[in-house]
Amino acid sequence: MRIAELKTPAFLVDLPKLKSNIRAMKERARTHGVRLRPHVKTHKTAEIARLQIPDEASGITVSTLAEARFYQKAGFDDIIYAFPITPNKLDEAAELTGRLKHFHILLDQFETATAVAAYGRDNHVCFSVFLKVDCGYHRAGVDPSTPESVQLAKQMQASTHIQFQGILTHAGHSYQCCNREEIIGVAQQERDVMAKFAKRLKRDGIDCETVSVGSTPTAVHAPGWQGISEIRPGNYAFFDKFQTDVGSCRLEETAATVLTTVVAHYPQHNQMLIDAGALALSKDPGAVHLDDEIVYGAVSGHPLLKVFSIAQEHGLVTSQAPIAFETFPVGSLLQIIPNHSCLTAALFPKYHVVEGDQVVDEWRPMRGW
Amino acid sequence: MRIAELKTPAFLVDLPKLKSNIRAMKERARTHGVRLRPHVKTHKTAEIARLQIPDEASGITVSTLAEARFYQKAGFDDIIYAFPITPNKLDEAAELTGRLKHFHILLDQFETATAVAAYGRDNHVCFSVFLKVDCGYHRAGVDPSTPESVQLAKQMQASTHIQFQGILTHAGHSYQCCNREEIIGVAQQERDVMAKFAKRLKRDGIDCETVSVGSTPTAVHAPGWQGISEIRPGNYAFFDKFQTDVGSCRLEETAATVLTTVVAHYPQHNQMLIDAGALALSKDPGAVHLDDEIVYGAVSGHPLLKVFSIAQEHGLVTSQAPIAFETFPVGSLLQIIPNHSCLTAALFPKYHVVEGDQVVDEWRPMRGW
Repeated sequence: MRIAELKTPAFLVDLPKLKSNIRAMKERARTHGVRLRPHVKTHKTAEIARLQIPDEASGITVSTLAEARFYQKAGFDDIIYAFPITPNKLDEAAELTGRLKHFHILLDQFETATAVAAYGRDNHVCFSVFLKVDCGYHRAGVDPSTPESVQLAKQMQASTHIQFQGILTHAGHSYQCCNREEIIGVAQQERDVMAKFAKRLKRDGIDCETVSVGSTPTAVHAPGWQGISEIRPGNYAFFDKFQTDVGSCRLEETAATVLTTVVAHYPQHNQMLIDAGALALSKDPGAVHLDDEIVYGAVSGHPLLKVFSIAQEHGLVTSQAPIAFETFPVGSLLQIIPNHSCLTAALFPKYHVVEGDQVVDEWRPMRGW
Repeated sequence: MRIAELKTPAFLVDLPKLKSNIRAMKERARTHGVRLRPHVKTHKTAEIARLQIPDEASGITVSTLAEARFYQKAGFDDIIYAFPITPNKLDEAAELTGRLKHFHILLDQFETATAVAAYGRDNHVCFSVFLKVDCGYHRAGVDPSTPESVQLAKQMQASTHIQFQGILTHAGHSYQCCNREEIIGVAQQERDVMAKFAKRLKRDGIDCETVSVGSTPTAVHAPGWQGISEIRPGNYAFFDKFQTDVGSCRLEETAATVLTTVVAHYPQHNQMLIDAGALALSKDPGAVHLDDEIVYGAVSGHPLLKVFSIAQEHGLVTSQAPIAFETFPVGSLLQIIPNHSCLTAALFPKYHVVEGDQVVDEWRPMRGW
């Protein structure tokens, strides 16, 4: 089947670009001697996760327990659930601990550590647990400069129902960078904070088997990972307009687009209507710290066009110059590079895998919680 | 099952509130002698659509062809597909025209009218078609003050393969209002523009069987619908924070919430982490024309709390005052009233129907295109 025969809107994955992005990250990890544990939340498919892992024994990272169950059934046997656990999720976490060779959870609260230990004791489970660390993003994690952070690690290590696995962070503030140099700065901070905290814990007799860092921008640009054992980037498989804007990649490297039809011309407003709205693109506004103007994605091959307004199913495209409407006849197709491929991908029940103008496969992602 | 036993995040539909919102809109339509053709894109379930229609013979409005197929299979037999048709969707539209008692499409381009007529001729189909009119929103539709708009209606009526059904508009600019008075103004404009255009067409010998208007804010507050035959509101079934902010409803009337767990406390930042992020709430920023500060939903029962930042699965809550963390222990539950219930509902594979603290049913919406 050809792309031109697809119903729109449709989510397209460019297979050669996907493979190239995946190959580049594997190569970076290998060169720097760090383990690659890809985050699969961007796509949530078994197919892409299999391409991402360096070898059969490699682990992955997930963002929900439903993803963990999906990948367990798909044959993956080493999974980090990279969202702080809560007491109401321990039944599910215990079941996954039983089913998987390695299943790791994480926490950053004293009372959660107590609840995990108590649940483990009552149910004869030993959980593998990371201490979540805040390396500067301030979204979640303990502040590693405080005595409490060491105290929590000690409490975890002292519990017979917790296997203390190490420390883990996500340098989400790399998404606030304006260029490659700033990303390198955040990557160095991420590494320094984590390596220093691991050393400090060691002085207190607490060994970190794993020191784990994340974020695609820092994974792409970090000059090195001394003291770090694994990296968990995810978005790099697809990349997107946001990653392009902050300097993680070039627009040509983005591997996911939304195929859409030109529905109508409104020359009086210099606008075109497309059938990709908020349910096809997501309302992620992109890198708003770099531009006052919000656009909902780049139009592939047409740098002057911009999706400036979206409703549930309607998208409106305008241009800095008068639109050459004859170039975009009603019924013709455009490809939108989304602002945030993770949120856009999550809106589609299937992905069309393409090479050139041919659709070569169809992949079904998992959904829900 | 009790709400407290649900996995989070979960989408809750408060059945008494839903029924009350639906009853009020039916009553308004009946009082004003206008037909109610609810838009079902907000929820995409058969169950809520059945509650919404005034009687078995009533029609509904959908936003995608996939919705039309879903509702056709669910037994609905009078459907408007309220998004301008394009040539590449005519095969599907023709199939629906054959299967449904009444299936209506719409258009606003000369070349689309030509393509529809040609397709009809070649495939022996007569399409029921609305002319889409711009009543001031400037998203789609013909400008009814131009000679071209009349000319397009004439072209449609002249085609033997188009049954000209009438004119249809969506007063989406009601969402830019700041209060009830402004909404009433838009409602009057919506009615006046459409009634006047219908009269003008009549002078040219073109009868509009149906004059159809939309938008929940105008449907809630319009003083009357003289000259209008049907209204197509949708969001009113759930309402949301946006509708509350612009003055369509009271916050207590919102019938859809996202159930979430308090995951962690960060007193140093006056923040709490919850397990409802962008994939549970959507990134809709709400009524940004009314407030410079973006929040991603209201916390039910806690007016000082606000969801100020969301990532894929992470939500961060803060407060104007220091958070009383002991009120929200780790593991406790909150209900978030979403900014835009249509986009939030679309993220969940199932809805939990609740009455008080009990889960009384589970509804499965349709998804995709």
